[in-house]
Amino acid sequence: MKILFLNGPNLNLLGSREPDKYGTLTLKDIENFVKLEADKLNVEVEFYQTNIEGELVNKVQESKGKYDGIVINPAAYTHTSVAIRDAILAVEIPTVEIHISNIHKREEFRTNSMTAPACIGQITGFGAFSYKLGLIAVTDYIKSFEQD
Amino acid sequence: MKILFLNGPNLNLLGSREPDKYGTLTLKDIENFVKLEADKLNVEVEFYQTNIEGELVNKVQESKGKYDGIVINPAAYTHTSVAIRDAILAVEIPTVEIHISNIHKREEFRTNSMTAPACIGQITGFGAFSYKLGLIAVTDYIKSFEQD
Amino acid sequence: MKILFLNGPNLNLLGSREPDKYGTLTLKDIENFVKLEADKLNVEVEFYQTNIEGELVNKVQESKGKYDGIVINPAAYTHTSVAIRDAILAVEIPTVEIHISNIHKREEFRTNSMTAPACIGQITGFGAFSYKLGLIAVTDYIKSFEQD
Amino acid sequence: MKILFLNGPNLNLLGSREPDKYGTLTLKDIENFVKLEADKLNVEVEFYQTNIEGELVNKVQESKGKYDGIVINPAAYTHTSVAIRDAILAVEIPTVEIHISNIHKREEFRTNSMTAPACIGQITGFGAFSYKLGLIAVTDYIKSFEQD
Amino acid sequence: MKILFLNGPNLNLLGSREPDKYGTLTLKDIENFVKLEADKLNVEVEFYQTNIEGELVNKVQESKGKYDGIVINPAAYTHTSVAIRDAILAVEIPTVEIHISNIHKREEFRTNSMTAPACIGQITGFGAFSYKLGLIAVTDYIKSFEQD
Amino acid sequence: MKILFLNGPNLNLLGSREPDKYGTLTLKDIENFVKLEADKLNVEVEFYQTNIEGELVNKVQESKGKYDGIVINPAAYTHTSVAIRDAILAVEIPTVEIHISNIHKREEFRTNSMTAPACIGQITGFGAFSYKLGLIAVTDYIKSFEQD
Amino acid sequence: MKILFLNGPNLNLLGSREPDKYGTLTLKDIENFVKLEADKLNVEVEFYQTNIEGELVNKVQESKGKYDGIVINPAAYTHTSVAIRDAILAVEIPTVEIHISNIHKREEFRTNSMTAPACIGQITGFGAFSYKLGLIAVTDYIKSFEQD
Amino acid sequence: MKILFLNGPNLNLLGSREPDKYGTLTLKDIENFVKLEADKLNVEVEFYQTNIEGELVNKVQESKGKYDGIVINPAAYTHTSVAIRDAILAVEIPTVEIHISNIHKREEFRTNSMTAPACIGQITGFGAFSYKLGLIAVTDYIKSFEQD
Amino acid sequence: MKILFLNGPNLNLLGSREPDKYGTLTLKDIENFVKLEADKLNVEVEFYQTNIEGELVNKVQESKGKYDGIVINPAAYTHTSVAIRDAILAVEIPTVEIHISNIHKREEFRTNSMTAPACIGQITGFGAFSYKLGLIAVTDYIKSFEQD
Amino acid sequence: MKILFLNGPNLNLLGSREPDKYGTLTLKDIENFVKLEADKLNVEVEFYQTNIEGELVNKVQESKGKYDGIVINPAAYTHTSVAIRDAILAVEIPTVEIHISNIHKREEFRTNSMTAPACIGQITGFGAFSYKLGLIAVTDYIKSFEQD
Amino acid sequence: MKILFLNGPNLNLLGSREPDKYGTLTLKDIENFVKLEADKLNVEVEFYQTNIEGELVNKVQESKGKYDGIVINPAAYTHTSVAIRDAILAVEIPTVEIHISNIHKREEFRTNSMTAPACIGQITGFGAFSYKLGLIAVTDYIKSFEQD
Amino acid sequence: MKILFLNGPNLNLLGSREPDKYGTLTLKDIENFVKLEADKLNVEVEFYQTNIEGELVNKVQESKGKYDGIVINPAAYTHTSVAIRDAILAVEIPTVEIHISNIHKREEFRTNSMTAPACIGQITGFGAFSYKLGLIAVTDYIKSFEQD
Repeated sequence: MKILFLNGPNLNLLGSREPDKYGTLTLKDIENFVKLEADKLNVEVEFYQTNIEGELVNKVQESKGKYDGIVINPAAYTHTSVAIRDAILAVEIPTVEIHISNIHKREEFRTNSMTAPACIGQITGFGAFSYKLGLIAVTDYIKSFEQD
Repeated sequence: MKILFLNGPNLNLLGSREPDKYGTLTLKDIENFVKLEADKLNVEVEFYQTNIEGELVNKVQESKGKYDGIVINPAAYTHTSVAIRDAILAVEIPTVEIHISNIHKREEFRTNSMTAPACIGQITGFGAFSYKLGLIAVTDYIKSFEQD
Repeated sequence: MKILFLNGPNLNLLGSREPDKYGTLTLKDIENFVKLEADKLNVEVEFYQTNIEGELVNKVQESKGKYDGIVINPAAYTHTSVAIRDAILAVEIPTVEIHISNIHKREEFRTNSMTAPACIGQITGFGAFSYKLGLIAVTDYIKSFEQD
Repeated sequence: MKILFLNGPNLNLLGSREPDKYGTLTLKDIENFVKLEADKLNVEVEFYQTNIEGELVNKVQESKGKYDGIVINPAAYTHTSVAIRDAILAVEIPTVEIHISNIHKREEFRTNSMTAPACIGQITGFGAFSYKLGLIAVTDYIKSFEQD
Repeated sequence: MKILFLNGPNLNLLGSREPDKYGTLTLKDIENFVKLEADKLNVEVEFYQTNIEGELVNKVQESKGKYDGIVINPAAYTHTSVAIRDAILAVEIPTVEIHISNIHKREEFRTNSMTAPACIGQITGFGAFSYKLGLIAVTDYIKSFEQD
Repeated sequence: MKILFLNGPNLNLLGSREPDKYGTLTLKDIENFVKLEADKLNVEVEFYQTNIEGELVNKVQESKGKYDGIVINPAAYTHTSVAIRDAILAVEIPTVEIHISNIHKREEFRTNSMTAPACIGQITGFGAFSYKLGLIAVTDYIKSFEQD
Repeated sequence: MKILFLNGPNLNLLGSREPDKYGTLTLKDIENFVKLEADKLNVEVEFYQTNIEGELVNKVQESKGKYDGIVINPAAYTHTSVAIRDAILAVEIPTVEIHISNIHKREEFRTNSMTAPACIGQITGFGAFSYKLGLIAVTDYIKSFEQD
Repeated sequence: MKILFLNGPNLNLLGSREPDKYGTLTLKDIENFVKLEADKLNVEVEFYQTNIEGELVNKVQESKGKYDGIVINPAAYTHTSVAIRDAILAVEIPTVEIHISNIHKREEFRTNSMTAPACIGQITGFGAFSYKLGLIAVTDYIKSFEQD
Repeated sequence: MKILFLNGPNLNLLGSREPDKYGTLTLKDIENFVKLEADKLNVEVEFYQTNIEGELVNKVQESKGKYDGIVINPAAYTHTSVAIRDAILAVEIPTVEIHISNIHKREEFRTNSMTAPACIGQITGFGAFSYKLGLIAVTDYIKSFEQD
Repeated sequence: MKILFLNGPNLNLLGSREPDKYGTLTLKDIENFVKLEADKLNVEVEFYQTNIEGELVNKVQESKGKYDGIVINPAAYTHTSVAIRDAILAVEIPTVEIHISNIHKREEFRTNSMTAPACIGQITGFGAFSYKLGLIAVTDYIKSFEQD
Repeated sequence: MKILFLNGPNLNLLGSREPDKYGTLTLKDIENFVKLEADKLNVEVEFYQTNIEGELVNKVQESKGKYDGIVINPAAYTHTSVAIRDAILAVEIPTVEIHISNIHKREEFRTNSMTAPACIGQITGFGAFSYKLGLIAVTDYIKSFEQD
Repeated sequence: MKILFLNGPNLNLLGSREPDKYGTLTLKDIENFVKLEADKLNVEVEFYQTNIEGELVNKVQESKGKYDGIVINPAAYTHTSVAIRDAILAVEIPTVEIHISNIHKREEFRTNSMTAPACIGQITGFGAFSYKLGLIAVTDYIKSFEQD
């Protein structure tokens, strides 16, 4: 089983960026941590990060046939991107949305998600653990049965 | 480690209630499934369900000193209950909010959560797996370090 | 045929409570009046009143297999109770929502109903006659054919 | 006792128009059905249908002195017609608003009623039975005592 | 100089309709009163009333070349009629909007006017005197100079 | 193939009405222009104009069995008419909505359409060409296959 | 009979201020024009202008017993001043609100009036003639009978 | 004179609950403090706390004939409870609403009160002193004369 | 201890102004009543009233070093005055906001307060007693300890 | 004459993407179809697709001097892209906005267009035919005369 | 060249007022600092401060012919004052709006400006430097050419 | 000292793009003008322009350690870009937002800024001078002391 982890804008700055909100781990730290968890589950994972909305759309599109599932942290694009939403709906690969911080504790405009309705579900607020939980969620989903 | 699973109104009907939205497992099935997972994590779990908002408040209050963490599915009270929100803030026990269905895919009024800002984070949309993910989330949180 | 009449908060005060809005009949008077009408229709009716939202949820749940239909006056909970709405959807017993006063003539927040979308329909504004009309509506619905 | 049944736009298409929403009975079928019920109540009823808002206003105005009550299904004009609302207020004939489908289950813009605040009350969602219930409601209202 | 007085829905009921809001004069009384005032100003006036929105549109269109000005009380259509607004803009005859009651003292939905932006100005709240003031306003406007 | 062109309020004034917004062609000019285009497509077209909302409803209803398609410019009624929307939904004749000016460039209240959701699609902003485009759109739709 | 004309902020600049919106007459010109009209009606008028909201409140309060009526152009304070509204309600002197430009043709925030609900009525859009119309309106109101 | 002090959800946690918002006194401390004040005023007071909305409704209803006045801190139910509002309106016992923290300084949703319009008035922001002020307010009200 | 009572617009009319809303006592009556209460508390009080927003700002600023606390009834300026809010925040003198009538029972725009978030708390609805309660509230606050 | 067809995000997936909404033709199929139509009109057309908002802006800018007109389907960027809107306004090349599905039949957020006010007009809902209609619209516009 | 610096309510408290928001410089300090900068630019500056909205209006009006430009910090009146907006529009003196703190970082109601649309532009967030920047902005504007 | 000037979409068209809104200077002209000013201040400046949102994010991120400050004109992305906002917050380089036109004079959607809360402040409306003012603002800020 192969899972793609898509990371949106500014997540490449994790570790140095507002550490009180986003923790002190870098994206590389998280990738390593997730790979350890993935090994336990016998799953292959790949990480990709970009600041450009359209490249996230490209990556979602290209996942078709290459990955069994996607874990996406759309970051800033969560709240406005119809394009990413449409891409997820178009490729029909099981996708889980995750957030490091709890979006319900922050500015009003961050509490809604334009992309979550296109995903199986959303996990928000558990720091780096959100990535681990996303991994478990998508693999459980794929392995067993479809629930809604 | 002891974790309390709080279940709000109508969750006692799981299995028979709108199975296309909530799946075919009963709450007892989920409890058994979670207990298997909890055994692997060496964690003790307890399940409680009530249809009365104030009794959820009572249970949250009584958890102080008895449980290390709470996983709560406030169900219908998610969207309006200031009382449950205040109770979680008051007792300061690590709490994770979960939902069986993806609240972002449903009626507009179900997409906001009055209780989530009082929790570590929220997990929504993974059916019975939301309970398992909630268990992992709260135990990871307690065991290691605080993230926001 | 057995019909349950569920009455929400403060309806136990009917007769003495703001009689210009709610009339001078007590809930007992209405129950007697409805039973006379029910006799004509050869229907058995039962009345229940509570001030607690969760107990209305309990009663709706317990109706399954015991009653053929429900006539509910959710009173103050009409405008906010997702829990009662979900309960009605869950048990799938034909349910009619009624109101004594015309909710469209009152404060803005009373004109919307959170529970009506889960019911066959709504009857509002006819005083004690709303109960009689609710009885006829639910029995006609059950006896003949489903309409939407 | 004479009751006028006023029917707004597109109700002349009943039976063929979106039967899943409005049922398979024609307006003539309903008229016949209502007349049978009216006979039991010893009441005379008349039906009128028009697609023109102003003609509904005309009819309401002309009812003064000719009818004891009105049962109105303003259909599409329910949600916007200040003119019909004002006409009902002006003539002061007891009026009951009815709808075939449950307006609370449909598009947001159909859930509010501009005309209901001018009526005794509103009955919505019972198909052709809404007409029968409207007849009973208005005759009960006229025969006995005024309730609000 | 010839001025057309256009009267919208339910104004034919003036005198009997909610006299606390609209006064006890009939539309005929007002017409007679306005004609006395018009004689003083050496102006010819004509009155027209209809309950049908489209007929008000027709009348506005037909005024071109027949009247020097229009005084319009669109009544219930004030708040929603884009068609009357467009007609006034299309014919470019000086038009004054009047109301018997003070629309700013009534229901929220009556305080805005869809038609007033197409008129020279609006006069609201002076009972039958609103008609006299409308007459003076439109004749002053025509006789002297254009003001905005 | 027979196509009905329905024209709403004030379109009879085309040519003289606010020519900067609506062009200098009269409705008759447009009719002649459309007929030339229709000849090329071997289609018969008929034009109808009225200022009365309910007469547009009547015409839509009467089209059943007489026309293969409708091109409608509801003009001022576009933004409020639930009645026309319901009529189009009821008769199930392929219908295309057109506008002479670009409704997205004008007042806020003109940018939404109450009737467009009942049509195949909407064409807005091309002056008299909107009529030609509407003709092509509806005939292409009828001739070939249904797309949404 | 004595009438006070109250003028709000920036009306002292009339004549030079945005003449396309407010005309070329100065406030003194208007005062002279109004006095001529007042002579015809055998009425005494006085003009007062201030840029300070509280001084308008003072003037309204001091009018009690000194003037039979007030004509007020609250200008910029129209849209926000609860204080002037309360003052007019408190002194209970017949008051007419006037505006030079048509407030319904301007920015959204100018179309509502905080003060108009405290007045007999409102006259808007007739340039200097608004002052004449205000004079006639208030004297007619005082001389004859109360209408609402 | 007998006064009932009703306390809503989570107020039993006072002292330990978010002390920066709610102070360090327990509800028992406040009760003792209020009783000292009550003694000075020769008034008998009773305290009741519950987390269940419907039980607050019950208590308000049962006060009829047992207490001369109510001081209520509805806590979290302040912002949503139509049921408590209706109960206070129904029993017609003089009632004062109090809050420990200043609701105008907190989250937007806490600034409005659903229950205050049913009370004589509201006192908010004075910590434990809000209870003392509530006591004085309700006894002054009862002893002397009715003010609104 | 010296306390300043600041009174906003139209409060100089108390006694004659809408007595059903504001009572029959004059501001002087209230001042005398408050002084009696102040004597019991061994506190010196001063009263000031103005209709001008900026003069209330001036008075708040000048209080620094002259008064130990402020009781302010901003009246009409409550709902819009950012300037008074900023002044109270700037001088950091303990301030209590009071209202004679219950602002939660009145027009929608009166239920919010722009100034209350800058005060310790707010007391609303107790007529002249609001002044006494404000006096007690501010002196208790100063004398003992800070609560929030 | 040369026309550029610009296609926004996810349109490269046409044919496989939600075919019930977007049809079964691929973008290449549509391009071939449009080229056949273009040949009839003696017009040269070019197709471009990208998922990146800024590249659509680039393409619009580069069209200056290279194309006579643009037909743009901004897809997901329709609803939020101020940048594309500004680009179209800046280059002043006649541009027509098209959509495959009828945006008025879909989610609320898809019914408004940020880009349409910068275009001549908009065509929505005709599947692949929207492209043909866009071609005709833009060539008619260029060939003959400007209409608004 | 002469420039007037207008300062709104509470700016006389600068230095002592909430120094974390507004800095520790007094208004006199800023005036001295600005005068040094003005000397470099060979410009004469004058400072004026008042807490009264109407006096700011007065000052703006009196600037005509006395000053070449205005730099205004309307402080609390920024968000509501139609009167100051109208005064700036009326006198047509180049005016620049400045703010010490960044209004976009503060309460929602402080982010909009009623006065900025009447100014050349707005400078917000640079502390005392906002005054220097305002000086440069207005003199550059006057000296060279008009830009929008 | 090194300052980066970031320019968003369509600013490469300055000079030819809607010159009444944006002036006739090209971006190169502005760059030259700013460099002259920078020389006076002994500051090095660099200009960058892109139409792609994500590339602006990239540039902001890469500024860390290379520039002492940023002056950014996010143009169309001002109103929606959470990504640029987050990037500025993440790198913690002093940043000033500028706009050529006065955003408060334009369409409603342009008056709010998603990016300004992440900046020191905002300068809007001074044409090419906005760039000069931005340069002075950011260098003053860096050179001296932090103000908010």
